[in-house]
Amino acid sequence: MAGDGTDQRALQYEQTLMYGRYTQELGVYAKEEAARIREEAAYRRLVTERSRSLDLLEYDKSRCAKCRICTVHCQKFLISRVGEDWIFLILLGLVMALVSWVMDFCIALCLQAQKWMYGGLDSNVVLQYLAWVTYPVVLISFSAGFTHIVAPQAAGSGIPEMKTILRGVVLKEYLTLKTFVAKVIGLTCALGSGMPLGKEGPFVHIASLCAALLSKFMSLFGGIYEDPNLIGIKNESRNIEMLAAACAVGVGCCFAAPIGGVLFSIEVTSTFFAVRNYWRGFFAATFSAFIFRVLAVWNRDEETITALFKTRFRLDFPFDLQELPAFAVIGIASGFGGALFVYLNRLIVQFIRKQKAINKFLMKKRLLYPALVTLLISTLTFPPGFGQFMAGQLTQKESLVTLLDNRTWAKQGIAEEFEYIGHAAAWKHPQANVFITLVIFIVMKFWMSALATTIPVPCGAFMPVFVIGAAFGRLVGESMAAWFPEGIHSDGVVYSIVPGGYAVVGAAALSGAVTHTVSTAVIVFELTGQISHILPIMIAVILANAVAQSLQPSIYDSIIRIKKLPYLPELGWGHHEKYNIRVEDIMVRDVRYITLNCTYRDLHDVLLTERLKTLALVESTESMILLGSIERAQLQALLSQQLGRPRRLEYLRQRAQNERKHSSIVSTPSSEEGNHKASHEVRFQISTEESSFSPTRSVSPKPLKPALKRHSVVERGTEIPSNQDSGIALKSLFCAHPEAAAVEDPDVDDDMTMREIAEWEELQLDEQVNFNNCKIDPAPFQLVERTSLHKTHTIFSLLGLDHAYVTSIGRLIGVVSLRELRKAIEGSVTVKGVKVRPPLASFRDSGTSSSDAEVTELHKLWNRHTNLTLPQDHQPSDSDEKSQ
Amino acid sequence: MAGDGTDQRALQYEQTLMYGRYTQELGVYAKEEAARIREEAAYRRLVTERSRSLDLLEYDKSRCAKCRICTVHCQKFLISRVGEDWIFLILLGLVMALVSWVMDFCIALCLQAQKWMYGGLDSNVVLQYLAWVTYPVVLISFSAGFTHIVAPQAAGSGIPEMKTILRGVVLKEYLTLKTFVAKVIGLTCALGSGMPLGKEGPFVHIASLCAALLSKFMSLFGGIYEDPNLIGIKNESRNIEMLAAACAVGVGCCFAAPIGGVLFSIEVTSTFFAVRNYWRGFFAATFSAFIFRVLAVWNRDEETITALFKTRFRLDFPFDLQELPAFAVIGIASGFGGALFVYLNRLIVQFIRKQKAINKFLMKKRLLYPALVTLLISTLTFPPGFGQFMAGQLTQKESLVTLLDNRTWAKQGIAEEFEYIGHAAAWKHPQANVFITLVIFIVMKFWMSALATTIPVPCGAFMPVFVIGAAFGRLVGESMAAWFPEGIHSDGVVYSIVPGGYAVVGAAALSGAVTHTVSTAVIVFELTGQISHILPIMIAVILANAVAQSLQPSIYDSIIRIKKLPYLPELGWGHHEKYNIRVEDIMVRDVRYITLNCTYRDLHDVLLTERLKTLALVESTESMILLGSIERAQLQALLSQQLGRPRRLEYLRQRAQNERKHSSIVSTPSSEEGNHKASHEVRFQISTEESSFSPTRSVSPKPLKPALKRHSVVERGTEIPSNQDSGIALKSLFCAHPEAAAVEDPDVDDDMTMREIAEWEELQLDEQVNFNNCKIDPAPFQLVERTSLHKTHTIFSLLGLDHAYVTSIGRLIGVVSLRELRKAIEGSVTVKGVKVRPPLASFRDSGTSSSDAEVTELHKLWNRHTNLTLPQDHQPSDSDEKSQ
Repeated sequence: MAGDGTDQRALQYEQTLMYGRYTQELGVYAKEEAARIREEAAYRRLVTERSRSLDLLEYDKSRCAKCRICTVHCQKFLISRVGEDWIFLILLGLVMALVSWVMDFCIALCLQAQKWMYGGLDSNVVLQYLAWVTYPVVLISFSAGFTHIVAPQAAGSGIPEMKTILRGVVLKEYLTLKTFVAKVIGLTCALGSGMPLGKEGPFVHIASLCAALLSKFMSLFGGIYEDPNLIGIKNESRNIEMLAAACAVGVGCCFAAPIGGVLFSIEVTSTFFAVRNYWRGFFAATFSAFIFRVLAVWNRDEETITALFKTRFRLDFPFDLQELPAFAVIGIASGFGGALFVYLNRLIVQFIRKQKAINKFLMKKRLLYPALVTLLISTLTFPPGFGQFMAGQLTQKESLVTLLDNRTWAKQGIAEEFEYIGHAAAWKHPQANVFITLVIFIVMKFWMSALATTIPVPCGAFMPVFVIGAAFGRLVGESMAAWFPEGIHSDGVVYSIVPGGYAVVGAAALSGAVTHTVSTAVIVFELTGQISHILPIMIAVILANAVAQSLQPSIYDSIIRIKKLPYLPELGWGHHEKYNIRVEDIMVRDVRYITLNCTYRDLHDVLLTERLKTLALVESTESMILLGSIERAQLQALLSQQLGRPRRLEYLRQRAQNERKHSSIVSTPSSEEGNHKASHEVRFQISTEESSFSPTRSVSPKPLKPALKRHSVVERGTEIPSNQDSGIALKSLFCAHPEAAAVEDPDVDDDMTMREIAEWEELQLDEQVNFNNCKIDPAPFQLVERTSLHKTHTIFSLLGLDHAYVTSIGRLIGVVSLRELRKAIEGSVTVKGVKVRPPLASFRDSGTSSSDAEVTELHKLWNRHTNLTLPQDHQPSDSDEKSQ
Repeated sequence: MAGDGTDQRALQYEQTLMYGRYTQELGVYAKEEAARIREEAAYRRLVTERSRSLDLLEYDKSRCAKCRICTVHCQKFLISRVGEDWIFLILLGLVMALVSWVMDFCIALCLQAQKWMYGGLDSNVVLQYLAWVTYPVVLISFSAGFTHIVAPQAAGSGIPEMKTILRGVVLKEYLTLKTFVAKVIGLTCALGSGMPLGKEGPFVHIASLCAALLSKFMSLFGGIYEDPNLIGIKNESRNIEMLAAACAVGVGCCFAAPIGGVLFSIEVTSTFFAVRNYWRGFFAATFSAFIFRVLAVWNRDEETITALFKTRFRLDFPFDLQELPAFAVIGIASGFGGALFVYLNRLIVQFIRKQKAINKFLMKKRLLYPALVTLLISTLTFPPGFGQFMAGQLTQKESLVTLLDNRTWAKQGIAEEFEYIGHAAAWKHPQANVFITLVIFIVMKFWMSALATTIPVPCGAFMPVFVIGAAFGRLVGESMAAWFPEGIHSDGVVYSIVPGGYAVVGAAALSGAVTHTVSTAVIVFELTGQISHILPIMIAVILANAVAQSLQPSIYDSIIRIKKLPYLPELGWGHHEKYNIRVEDIMVRDVRYITLNCTYRDLHDVLLTERLKTLALVESTESMILLGSIERAQLQALLSQQLGRPRRLEYLRQRAQNERKHSSIVSTPSSEEGNHKASHEVRFQISTEESSFSPTRSVSPKPLKPALKRHSVVERGTEIPSNQDSGIALKSLFCAHPEAAAVEDPDVDDDMTMREIAEWEELQLDEQVNFNNCKIDPAPFQLVERTSLHKTHTIFSLLGLDHAYVTSIGRLIGVVSLRELRKAIEGSVTVKGVKVRPPLASFRDSGTSSSDAEVTELHKLWNRHTNLTLPQDHQPSDSDEKSQ
C-alpha cells in the first residue's frame, strides 16, 4: 500500500507542478491533451463503427446491405433530430394549444353551471343569492387551498418570476411538474368562479413549465448522439431561449395572438433580446395559435379560423381625423388609471401585510382571505342587487364582446329606444342610463380587480384591466356619439361615430399602461381581427405608457418589488452619481477560493461554507493569481470520487495484493495484472476533455437548467461515503467496462467496518486534490476594481452574469455577484424614492429631478433675499450636483 | 530656463512615480482628485450662480423679481429640454414624414409625366417607344451620375451599411449632409423612372442620415447645460439608440407601418436588441406614420387616415381551413424564389465584376451600365410591344393595387367575360388568358428586379419583390378559384375563394424570404389595413423563411458580403470545431502600447504607426502590466499641447524673465508674478476630471459619433507646431481667462525662427509624458488567452466591442480586434462554404453538416465494401468530428 500510494502521490504532485508551471503552459498542455484524447476517441469510435458495419456486412452480404446501412443511418438521423428545436417548438405549441383549449372549455362549463344554478333558483332571491355567492367562494377557496398544498409557487401571475428566471436567476421549484399541475387546476377553478381575474400571466408561466417539462422529457430520447462536450454550454443558453419562446407561446395561445404574444413576452420579460431567437417565438406561437383556433373549428364553435373577439367596424372610414383628440384623452386618462391600478394593488398588499393582527389571523386561516374577498366581490355583482347597475350577470368574456359591439348604445344624449339584443341588454337599466351603468362598472371593477389579483390563486391582471379599459373607451365613445350625433365629418357624407372603436382604443391603452408595454396594441389587433384603428391605438398606447411610466412601475415590476424577487433593476442615464461608484466600492472582498495545491479536506470545508455556484481557483494563497473557476458540482464530483466506494474497493484490492505479495513473491502475473490495472486507472484519470462533463451529468442528471438547482449531495459531509450508487455510476462513465475493472474482481469484498471507513476517509481527505478530471473554466468573467457601476451593470445584464471576479493585475481581490450589484443600485436609487426604472422614465427623471433642483435653488434664492445674508460656502455639493 | 525646466521635470517625475506606485493608489488618487475638482467646480458654479442672481436682484428689486427668476429658470429648463429624446424623436418623425410625402409626390409627378408623354404620342409607335425608353434612361443616368458625383456612398439600399454602423463599426462619410442630398434626389429620380426599384431600404438610410444631421443640429442648442463628464459616454450609446429608432422611422413612414417598421428594422439591423429602446422606435415611427398619412388627408388624397393599399376582403369568412395547404405551398415556393432572387442578384454582380474587359469599360463610362440596363428593361415593358403580355403600362403601385383586388379575375378555369375595370384591364390580353399574363409578369419582373437592383443608384429591393410575391400569390389564388369555382366549404353556404388574399400571403412570404424577416407579415397587415389573414400569412412567412434561410443569406447579408463590409457574421451552435479555437490562436501578439514613462517622442512615433482608436497603457516594457487604455484623440491632444504655441510662449516668457533676472536682480515683483503664473499653470495641468473631456471635444467638435471618424490631425508630425489655433483653444479650455494667462502678456512676442522652433520641439519631444491631463480608461475590456472563440464572439456582439486586450495575469500579451475575429470565423466557415449565418440556419446546419457526414461515412463504408481493405487510421479527425 505504502509504495503505491507514494507513487501515486508523486505522480499527482508532478501533475500539480505541471499545472503550476504557468498558465500558458497549462493552455498548451490542455490543448495537447485534448488533441490526444480526441484522436483516441475518434479511434475508438472508428473501431466501434467499423465493428458495427462489419457486423452488418456479415449479417447480410446480399445486395440488401446498402438498404440496411441506409436504414440505420436514417434511424440515427431521426433519433438525433428529436432534439432539434423545431420539433420541440411544434410539440410545445401543440401541448399549449390543447391546454389552453381544454382550460377554456372547463372554464366555460364552470361559468355555465353557475348561470344555470342562478337561473334555476329564480323563485327565491335568498337562495339565488346563496347560489350566486357560494359557488365562486367554494371554487376560489378550493383553488387557493389546492395551490397552497401542491405548489405555493403557482400562485399569482408568474410573469415576474419568469422575468427573473430569464434574467438567469435561480428560483427554486418554479419549473416543476407539481407547479404545473397546481397552476393549471388552480387557474381553471379561479377563472371558473367568474371573479375579475385574467388568464394571460399564468399562461406565460404554464407555457414555461410546459417547455421545461417537455425539455426534460425529450432529453430522454434525443441527445444520445450529441457531443457531451457541448451539452452544458448548449443547454444553459438553449434553455433560456426555449423559455423565452415559451413565454411567447403562452400569450400567443391564450389570445390566439402570435405576433402580439411574441412582442408582449419580449417587452415583459427581457432586457436584451437576441434577434436570432426571434423566429422561435414566432414559429411556436403561430403554431400554437393555429392549433388553438383549429380546435375551435373542429369543435364546431366557429366556421373557420377568425379572431377571438371579432369586431365588425366599417373599413372605409374607420374614424375621423378630428376624433383624434378624444383618442389622445383616452390614452392620457388610461395612463393615470393604469398607474392608479398598480398603486392600488400594491397598497392593498402592503396594508394587509402591515396590519400585524389581521396578518397573523389570515396566516392561520389561509383560506379565509380568498373567501372573504370573493364573498365581497360576488355580493356586489349579484344581478338582482347592486349588480344590476354594473352588468353584473355578464362574464368577463361577455362584457368584452358587448363593449366591442359596433352599434351605438346611446343616441341623442339619453339612453333611448335602441334595441338591446342579447347580452347588451345587461347594460340597460330602467332607472339609469347607459353612462351611469358604465361609470359604475368602471369604478367597481377597478377596485375589485385590484383586490382580486391579490388573492393567492393563479391569476393575472391583464384581462380585467383590458375589460375596464374597454368600458372606459366605450364610455368616451358613447359620450362622443351623444355629443356629435351626426358625426364630425363636414363634407356632406355622414359618418357616425363608432363607440366600439373607442372601446378597442381604451382596452389597449389601459392594459398597456398597467403592463408598460406597447405591444398591447398588436394584441388588440389580433384579438379583434381589425387593424383599421391602428393609428389611434398606437397614439393612445404611447401616451398611456408615457404617463404611467412616469408615475409608477409596471404591475410586474411592482410585484417583483412586493415579492422581493432577485431581479436586477434598470439603470438609467438620469442618475449621474452612479458614475462615481466603482466595483471596488461594492465588491465582496472576502472571497472563498480553492488553491491548486489544496487538500480534499479544504475542498470539503469550502463546499460546506460557500454556497456560490462556481468557485474561484487560484494559484496559491500567497500569489492569489486567478487561474479559473470550477463549478460546484465538479468539486462535489471530485470529492465523492475520492471518497467513493470504487476507490475504496481499489484500495482494498491493493491491500489484498500487497498482503499476497508479502506472503508469496512467486505470483508475479497477478501483480502485473494489478499494476496494469492501476496504470489503466491512472490513464483514465488523466483524460480530461472527453470525460470532463460526465461528472456533472452524473451528479445532476437533470438536463434542464442544471444550474437552477443547488445540489445538496455533499452538504452533510459524513453521508458522502455511503453514496455507493453514484460512485459506481461515476466508474461506469470513466471506464468502458466498469464490471471488468472494479466489480468483477472476485478476491476483494467490502468488509471494512464503519470505523475503518472513517479512518480511510480521513486519510483520503488529507491527500492533495487532483484537478485533472475537473473541468476548469479558464476564462471566468473578470472586472478590475475601477470598472464603473454602470459598466458592470451593462455587462451583467447583457451577458446574464451571476457573478464576476474582480482582479487586480491577475490577482483575485474580490467578487461581485448580482446581489451586491442590486443592492448598490437600489441603495442609491432609494434615496430618491425611485426604485425600479421603466424604459420611458426619461420623462419622469427630467420632470422630478430638475424640478427638485429648481425648487431648492428658488428656496435658496428666497432665503437669501429675505435674510439678506450671504449663503454659506461649505454646502455646495448636493443641490448643485443635481442641477448639473 | 534650466532651473525651471528641471523643477518641472522633477514635478512630472514625482507625478509619474505617483501613478507608478500602483493601480490601487492610482484609483484612490483619481478619486481624491475627482472629489477635489468636483468641489472646486461646484464652488465656481456657485459663485457664478450667485453673481448672476445678485445681478438680477440689483437689476430689479421690486416684487417682479420672483417672476423674473421663474422666467430665467423656465428658459433654462426649456433650453435644456431641447436635448431630450422625445423632442428629437418628434422632429425626426416630422421631417421624415415630410421627406417621404414630398418624395412620393415628386415620384408620382415623374410617373405621370411619363404616362402623359407616352399617351400624347399615340399616333406614332416609334416616337412612343422613344419617349417610353428615353425618359427612364435619362432619369436613371442622371440619378447614377448625381449620386456618383455628390456621394457615391448613397448608392444602393443602405440597410447593409446601417447594419454595420449599428454594430459599432466606423463607416466614413455614410452619415453626412452630402450623402443625404444625394440619396434623396437620386432616389426620387430612380423611382420616378418607373424601374422595378424599391423605396424602403434607402429610406432606412435616409432616416438615419436625418437623425445624424438632426442630432448635430440640436447639439447646437441643447447640451449647453449638460454635464461635460457624461457627454462622451452618453453620446456614444445614445446615438446608436437614436440610429436604431431612425431605422424604424424609415420603414414606418415609407409604408405608414409603425409596428412593422419597428420590427422590420430590428430584424434587419440588430443582433441584440435592448428592449429599453423599443419605445423610441414606436414613438417616432408612429408619429412619422401619422404625419405621413395626415399629409395625404390634408392634400385631399384621402378622406381620412387609412392604410396605403387598403383591401376589402370579407371579414366574416376570410378563408377556409382547407385552403391552408395552398397557403403553405405559396410559403415554400416563395422560400425557394427568395433564395433564387438573392442568388441571381449576387450572380449578376459577380459576373460583371469577373468580366475584366466589361468591367474596365464600364468603370470608364460609369453611366453606361445604368443606361443599358434601363434601356433593356424599359424596352421589354413597352406596352405596345412585349409589355402587353405583362401589364407593362402599370406602375409598381398600380400593379400592387390591382393584384390585391378582392375580385376574382378568372372564373371557370378560363379568363372569361369578367368586367376588368380601371387598371385591372392591363392584366387582360385578347390572345392570352390571365394566367399567362401573370406567369410572364412574374418571370420577367423577377430577373428585371434582380438586375435593376444592381444599378448604382439609391434603390431597394423590397418593393419589387413584394409585387412579384403578390403576383405569385394572385396566380395561385386564381388557380384555386378556377379549380374550386364554388369554394371549398361543404356546409351548404358558398364562400368563394378570394385570390386577393393569396396575393397578400404571397407578397409577405416572398419579401420575408428575400429579407429573412418575419415582420413582413406585420408590414402587410398595416399596408392593407386588414389582419383577417393573419394565420395563413404567418404560416407562409415562417415556411418561406425556413426554406430561404437554409439556402441563401438574406439580400442584405449578401450585399454585405459583396461589398465586403466589416460586419461580424453570426456564429451558430452548429459549428462545433469553434469551441477549440481560443483567443490566443487568433490574437495579434504585436501590440503597440505606450508605457507610463515614455517620452513624447515615443508617443509621436506610436501615433504615426498605430491606427487603432485607443492605445494600451502599460506600466513598463518589462512588466507589461496593463494599466488602462487611452483614446487616440487624448494622446494627440497631449502632444499638441506639449508642442503648441502657448507652451512655446510660456517658454519664451520664462526665458525673457530669466534674462531680465540675469540683468537686474531688483525687479522682484515681476518675477514673483511670473512664478505665480507658473504655479497657476501647473495647478491647471494637474486638474483631471473636470477638464478631462475637453481635449477630445476640442479636437473632435462633432457631437455625433465622434468615434465614427478618425482624426488625422497628428498624422503628419511636422505640421503639429503650426497648429496654433487649436493650441489657443486648448488653453482657453484649461484656463478661465486665457488672455490673462498667455496672450495678454505684453513683454513676450513670438520671435522664434523656424529653426529655433524645430530645436525647441526636439527638446520638448524628449520630455517624459505627463499623463495627468489625460483621461485613462482604467478598465478596458480584457480577455484571457484561453477565452474561447464562441465566448469572444458573444461578448463582442453583445457589447458592440471594437477590440479587446488579451492579458495573462495582468500582463498585456495581445489584442483582438473585430478584424481578427471576423477572419477567424469566416476562415473556418468558408471551408464549409457557408459564410453569413442566418438565424433559422439550424435547419441548414442540421441538413448540410449531418448529410455531409452521412455521405462521407456511407462512402467510406462503400469503399471498404468494394475494396475489402481496412480503412486508414490516421485520418479520423475530420469526418468524425462532424458526425459527433
